[in-house]
Amino acid sequence: MRAVDIIQKKKEGCVLSKEEISFLIQGFTQNHIPEYQMSAFLMACCFKPLNFQETLHLTQAMLHSGKTFDFSDIPFKKIDKHSTGGVGDKTSIIIAPIVACYDVAIPMISGRGLGHTGGTVDKLESIPGFKMNLTFEKFQETLKALHFSMMGQTQDIAPADAKMYALRDVTATVECIPLIAASIMSKKLAEGIDGLVLDVKFGYGAFMQKLKNATELAKWLVKIGESCGKKTIALVTDMNQPLGYKIGNSLEVEESIDVLKDQGPKDLIDLSLTLSGTMLTLGGVARSLKEGISLSQKVISNGKALQKFKELIQCQGGDERVIDSFSYLPSAKRTSEFLSPKTGFVTQVNARKIGRAASILGCGRETVTDAIDPSVGLILHKKVGDKIQKNDILLTLRYNDEKKCAASMVELTQAFEIAPKKPHLTPLIQKVLGKL
Amino acid sequence: MRAVDIIQKKKEGCVLSKEEISFLIQGFTQNHIPEYQMSAFLMACCFKPLNFQETLHLTQAMLHSGKTFDFSDIPFKKIDKHSTGGVGDKTSIIIAPIVACYDVAIPMISGRGLGHTGGTVDKLESIPGFKMNLTFEKFQETLKALHFSMMGQTQDIAPADAKMYALRDVTATVECIPLIAASIMSKKLAEGIDGLVLDVKFGYGAFMQKLKNATELAKWLVKIGESCGKKTIALVTDMNQPLGYKIGNSLEVEESIDVLKDQGPKDLIDLSLTLSGTMLTLGGVARSLKEGISLSQKVISNGKALQKFKELIQCQGGDERVIDSFSYLPSAKRTSEFLSPKTGFVTQVNARKIGRAASILGCGRETVTDAIDPSVGLILHKKVGDKIQKNDILLTLRYNDEKKCAASMVELTQAFEIAPKKPHLTPLIQKVLGKL
Repeated sequence: MRAVDIIQKKKEGCVLSKEEISFLIQGFTQNHIPEYQMSAFLMACCFKPLNFQETLHLTQAMLHSGKTFDFSDIPFKKIDKHSTGGVGDKTSIIIAPIVACYDVAIPMISGRGLGHTGGTVDKLESIPGFKMNLTFEKFQETLKALHFSMMGQTQDIAPADAKMYALRDVTATVECIPLIAASIMSKKLAEGIDGLVLDVKFGYGAFMQKLKNATELAKWLVKIGESCGKKTIALVTDMNQPLGYKIGNSLEVEESIDVLKDQGPKDLIDLSLTLSGTMLTLGGVARSLKEGISLSQKVISNGKALQKFKELIQCQGGDERVIDSFSYLPSAKRTSEFLSPKTGFVTQVNARKIGRAASILGCGRETVTDAIDPSVGLILHKKVGDKIQKNDILLTLRYNDEKKCAASMVELTQAFEIAPKKPHLTPLIQKVLGKL
Repeated sequence: MRAVDIIQKKKEGCVLSKEEISFLIQGFTQNHIPEYQMSAFLMACCFKPLNFQETLHLTQAMLHSGKTFDFSDIPFKKIDKHSTGGVGDKTSIIIAPIVACYDVAIPMISGRGLGHTGGTVDKLESIPGFKMNLTFEKFQETLKALHFSMMGQTQDIAPADAKMYALRDVTATVECIPLIAASIMSKKLAEGIDGLVLDVKFGYGAFMQKLKNATELAKWLVKIGESCGKKTIALVTDMNQPLGYKIGNSLEVEESIDVLKDQGPKDLIDLSLTLSGTMLTLGGVARSLKEGISLSQKVISNGKALQKFKELIQCQGGDERVIDSFSYLPSAKRTSEFLSPKTGFVTQVNARKIGRAASILGCGRETVTDAIDPSVGLILHKKVGDKIQKNDILLTLRYNDEKKCAASMVELTQAFEIAPKKPHLTPLIQKVLGKL
């Protein structure tokens, strides 16, 4: 078998066999097949997309390119959640402790932020001392003790995906549903889970701008999950504006704790409860989504979920006092306010521009090696549909660097739209795919 | 400017600017832009082909990636010929000395054989002592003294093309007319020529199998040449069966000398005279193709062209006694005959299979680092349209290695077609494009 022949076959739109796909992925992971052949293959895949069967083979080949976890000795269903990424999306931090209050195990492996989107790893690491680079043993031990554990992606899990993603990022081959689907599912299936809830976002702040494309991706993800024998549910949710009001690493931990204290914003609470409710249903604890939501609300109300999160922070080396006082979280030295240029209704809070403004401030990174500042961020005061007067505060910036603040302000000038008429509001959760 | 954005633009089918194309080619030549980005770009070009203007920019960028020759101190028109490659195509060796008998200079830079096609460099190097790796000074000196010189491709000329071609070869991105056209023209235009004759081949033994595609490529080549201010003529010629009767490096030198002695086969003579006649016309020596052909025939008949070739061999360090006796050329130790399985008319001599059979024998190379055997080859006895009896000799193999001979025989079994009815013969030269 030769890589060039496989590339040629895909270029001509032929269907590749399981063996051909395995040959390519194995060879690439082991450095026998050079990056220039893989990038040509990936570009061919953008024009002649892999069919479902090929995508399934690709997922399996990527999944088996590294270590896979086996938690069969834990006597609960192992359920995880994955989001395709957005701005202000801190639901992982909220739902993992909620679900862990019940007999479900959540082996959650998360990513770092890149571009305008944040990452759970960066957010949790803003808690002083909190460690995300766990050994497998520590991860397993925490999972057994607390029913959940949260760690960062390692090189052991689906190394083919990490290599391929790095290449796709610099060769304009990211936007391709089968490749995206295989990338997501290979990592998640390596976690040894029984079920998976996917939050597939669409809109300005999402990877997929259009509902149609996000729905298509969601369908592929569910179909791959089910074909691999995992219960899989996908929510298609709106990411035109940020989720919640706080954007930035320590700020998002604050808002997550707010939700766990039953004090969070409605959109974030609603999505979190739907996600955790779905996970509890997949985990066999709740008999319906409604019951799952109710069980989730219960452990928020009685403080058990907050206590769970506190235990996780302790267990993973963090300063658990952040639960009781945000003063233990890093906080930027200065603040500045972004005012409304006119009176009317907020009709757009462009999540991509908000995310970019936050990233410029130091919340995120343009390249994987950039350093981030956990203390900076943005606090929204108004969201779509809100009435506003000229010179009202739209947003507060928490910053450390004047120049970055100024650059962030420039980005923000294009983030808001104010119009005389109240806009039509659409539901946050647009679709639910898969069988509960 | 970022390579990834240029790749994205091309992927979306947008037209690239001169600056973007230059950025890409310069960066790639200087190793700032990695191979994996170039290969993704090349694959995108296969699906969203460069338009003519982009191809012209690409040609210019590749041409200026290295050294360009300036022969303006030579008081004749500088004219070259390029063939897209075939089997048994030794016209360069014939026409260069013919044209050099007149006031035209031929700075001919040739390639090596690869795959089933031969290369002028390998053929001339079969003459004991003949050197093709000339310095620029030696090349120029020979050109001034003899009106022609023949050397191999160097890394100085259009290095971008060499790097890109190596990459295209292993990433299934060879078949793409704009890329092929830019590759050919960048090298030829770097030779500092005033005019160019192109022999664009189609058929089993050619790079382009179909007349339509070869014609399309010929059009692009002529248009690029003319846009760069060079007189450019393209012949579209049949390469379904080999040209002439001899295939193999020293054997092709023999047949070239036969033609220069006015003893060659008709197809090879006809094509050679048309090519040299066209060059003489482009060079301003002949007023018409007809006169060019007649002038070409004249220097064959009076022995001047043969004498020219002898002088070149002397000048470039070769043993000029080969002109008078082929015994000074390397010759394989053994011969074997391939017989006709039946009686009838030869309806196909598949040039690709013949070329592959020759390559297996040692005439060619599969990869650029393979060694070749100059002494081996095939001698055809029958060509398309010839009548044949069962067990008549179709072809003689000259070989050194039993195993290779056996493998070559296997390939040959599929090369010939014999049918009861005499086939319809089509002209060797199908089209002539460009203005004489």
